[in-house]
Amino acid sequence: MCVMLEELKKSVCLANKLLVQYGLVKFTWGNVSGINRKEGVIVIKPSGISYDELTPADMVILNLDGKKIEGRYNPSIDAPTHVVLYKSFPNIGGIVHTHSHWATVWAQAARSIPPYGTTHADFANGEIPCTKPLSKPQIRSNYEEYTGKMIAMCFNETNVSTKDIPAVLVRSHGPFTWGNDCIEAVENSVILEEVAKLAWETEILGWNQPIDSALLEKHYSRKHGRNSYYGQNLL
Amino acid sequence: MCVMLEELKKSVCLANKLLVQYGLVKFTWGNVSGINRKEGVIVIKPSGISYDELTPADMVILNLDGKKIEGRYNPSIDAPTHVVLYKSFPNIGGIVHTHSHWATVWAQAARSIPPYGTTHADFANGEIPCTKPLSKPQIRSNYEEYTGKMIAMCFNETNVSTKDIPAVLVRSHGPFTWGNDCIEAVENSVILEEVAKLAWETEILGWNQPIDSALLEKHYSRKHGRNSYYGQNLL
Amino acid sequence: MCVMLEELKKSVCLANKLLVQYGLVKFTWGNVSGINRKEGVIVIKPSGISYDELTPADMVILNLDGKKIEGRYNPSIDAPTHVVLYKSFPNIGGIVHTHSHWATVWAQAARSIPPYGTTHADFANGEIPCTKPLSKPQIRSNYEEYTGKMIAMCFNETNVSTKDIPAVLVRSHGPFTWGNDCIEAVENSVILEEVAKLAWETEILGWNQPIDSALLEKHYSRKHGRNSYYGQNLL
Amino acid sequence: MCVMLEELKKSVCLANKLLVQYGLVKFTWGNVSGINRKEGVIVIKPSGISYDELTPADMVILNLDGKKIEGRYNPSIDAPTHVVLYKSFPNIGGIVHTHSHWATVWAQAARSIPPYGTTHADFANGEIPCTKPLSKPQIRSNYEEYTGKMIAMCFNETNVSTKDIPAVLVRSHGPFTWGNDCIEAVENSVILEEVAKLAWETEILGWNQPIDSALLEKHYSRKHGRNSYYGQNLL
Repeated sequence: MCVMLEELKKSVCLANKLLVQYGLVKFTWGNVSGINRKEGVIVIKPSGISYDELTPADMVILNLDGKKIEGRYNPSIDAPTHVVLYKSFPNIGGIVHTHSHWATVWAQAARSIPPYGTTHADFANGEIPCTKPLSKPQIRSNYEEYTGKMIAMCFNETNVSTKDIPAVLVRSHGPFTWGNDCIEAVENSVILEEVAKLAWETEILGWNQPIDSALLEKHYSRKHGRNSYYGQNLL
Repeated sequence: MCVMLEELKKSVCLANKLLVQYGLVKFTWGNVSGINRKEGVIVIKPSGISYDELTPADMVILNLDGKKIEGRYNPSIDAPTHVVLYKSFPNIGGIVHTHSHWATVWAQAARSIPPYGTTHADFANGEIPCTKPLSKPQIRSNYEEYTGKMIAMCFNETNVSTKDIPAVLVRSHGPFTWGNDCIEAVENSVILEEVAKLAWETEILGWNQPIDSALLEKHYSRKHGRNSYYGQNLL
Repeated sequence: MCVMLEELKKSVCLANKLLVQYGLVKFTWGNVSGINRKEGVIVIKPSGISYDELTPADMVILNLDGKKIEGRYNPSIDAPTHVVLYKSFPNIGGIVHTHSHWATVWAQAARSIPPYGTTHADFANGEIPCTKPLSKPQIRSNYEEYTGKMIAMCFNETNVSTKDIPAVLVRSHGPFTWGNDCIEAVENSVILEEVAKLAWETEILGWNQPIDSALLEKHYSRKHGRNSYYGQNLL
Repeated sequence: MCVMLEELKKSVCLANKLLVQYGLVKFTWGNVSGINRKEGVIVIKPSGISYDELTPADMVILNLDGKKIEGRYNPSIDAPTHVVLYKSFPNIGGIVHTHSHWATVWAQAARSIPPYGTTHADFANGEIPCTKPLSKPQIRSNYEEYTGKMIAMCFNETNVSTKDIPAVLVRSHGPFTWGNDCIEAVENSVILEEVAKLAWETEILGWNQPIDSALLEKHYSRKHGRNSYYGQNLL
């Protein structure tokens, strides 16, 4: 386990630093985690530490119940949300939470992001959902855990796959994205941000019809489907 | 042919890298091609390869029917669109496709870009058209080829010259631009992006009247017309 | 006193330069000050001097009545406003005034910034208030002092704490922010700018309901409250 | 004259390069000139030459009638406009024309920029006017000269001083700014751009009342008036 864990800590540390490079965070406003499901460990950013200073040794290790099992720092304040998501979505390997600008605008407006074009369809096979509001008791007690449960409900109720839709907006708050690993989760945060900005400006120009369903399906499947013919790794 | 082909590969490789420098692409979201009509070859970016890594030797060579005749990679997924455009528009030497932000906003809103000022008129002698929607069968089969045909129709139906209007918006998708060569096509992508952003903000400010037709004609012709008096290459 | 004053001059000089680094100012359009209440001195930027050239020795020292007691330059033209704020708000240690873009937009529109999301709640425990207009006589005589008094009134009338709300918008003008020291005041200017931009785009998307009061309270208190559990400095 | 002329060529060359540094131009879309009224010469950028390549020796020298008296290049295509402005406004020493983004948006919308805040008032003592449209015959013949005349009319008709208002918007086109010398004219272009963006976003937020006239006067005069008390050069 040691070698794999060291690799995961390096990878999660790098992914956190990428948030700065891609312009997704200010100060310490974002956190990335990764999971090794075989070993039952989650690696996550420590709370409130600057990205510049982060080293792999600073990463915090949690078990699947969210208890810290290694690390000198407190984990990200949003760690309980990450833990719920890893439990609820068995296929994801990395999670990113930021307050990236344009995704946060849609979250603040309590709006899902409709698929208005092929840039969206190359990324997600439908709208990026916005969660329902938490109740006041849920906010006041175990808030971060309920945030995770509300995200899970959002996917489970509608039977949407986290593979098809790699992102969610937490109402009044901001986005979470995921991927096969934490680096892919960061790339999905970059794409979500672009898609969110495109959709905002498309609506302000007066347009509000989703993309033709055949075109959505075509673009999503030519890039991510079983018969994908994008890139160099073809069947 | 060898020397000319090597030059074309270098030029197309450089033009692809310029997309990053001008901020027109994220990840691998854009492709540039060039044509040598005498030799009957099209040179195009390989699919899904990062711009940083691209070398002239990575370029893919197609014949005018779109068949690969050289190169170890698969061509850009949009290659069939490029091929149709080269066949339909005999005067163009290079083509660029991106999802550049502001041009994509207009494409998502299914809107042509009206000529609102002299910045537009210095670039194009009229509106930048947006294509009609493809039918579901066209989307599901030979999609990239039909995309090219829809663009061609857009110009042929209205008798607009590709010299006067060096760009088009593919509805729900994004822009294609062209030029005498692939470098000029990239410059036209940069200008289109600026013109698209200016037009968006002009409309949101409440304005929707096209520029005076005499002023459009004046600016276009003083820069691109037979009696142009812009720059240093005067008659 | 000498050592502490030299430290304060260094810190205020650095904070002024940070305005440029964070993109909050153009030319010389902003000023930072700091106070040492024990010694009864305020250190402030000289008027109209470029940030690039600033050295700690260029800082201007004022007493608590706003009289210059050291320095070869004239103090910032807004010094009388700073002085009133230090007198009115006994808990603040540093002040920043800029014309940072998005905060200025709200100030020009004579609008307080409503708390639309958790990014705002992580920063301030309620709306960022906009001051009432000055009368014409107040504008014509002792304008900078009346500006400070109008800000003070804005907090005193509503019984809002400057710890809970670390910023204000001066109507038709721009923002002032504060903090425990001048560096924190600059960080608050950065955050205010992001919060102002988010709120603008949230409203333009059609949303105008403040965040749930329990969620506002939760986010503010988990970061700044007595039982804060953010970061590494926990009880 | 030789020494002064060489200095003016250096200064105009530098000012043209500053346009790039301040983000006011793309490609070759802008031109700066300066005048030496004693010697009766205007120095201006050559047409269509990249800013990177410009050297003082490339500058074109015109007499006050706009005839070239030195230089291997053709002058800027907009030179006749500059010449009319120098003749019409005897107090200006440098002129800048760009298609800077936000000023161009207002020009395309045929709108003067109202003074919405003190950032505007620190720059100009009233609205930045937009010219009336040219007639079709004026566009078709001596277009650049008529553009200058239309700008002059805009100030002369309303008795506005070019010292109080250092900029104008040419309808459907873009801004001209001026100053005591060409460097100050460039700085005025930077400020105009910021003021134009602020005003756009202020209006979109729903505000359309100009700043209180006493506040406009106060800010303009404390910076530019006879009794200015801004900066270090006080009476």
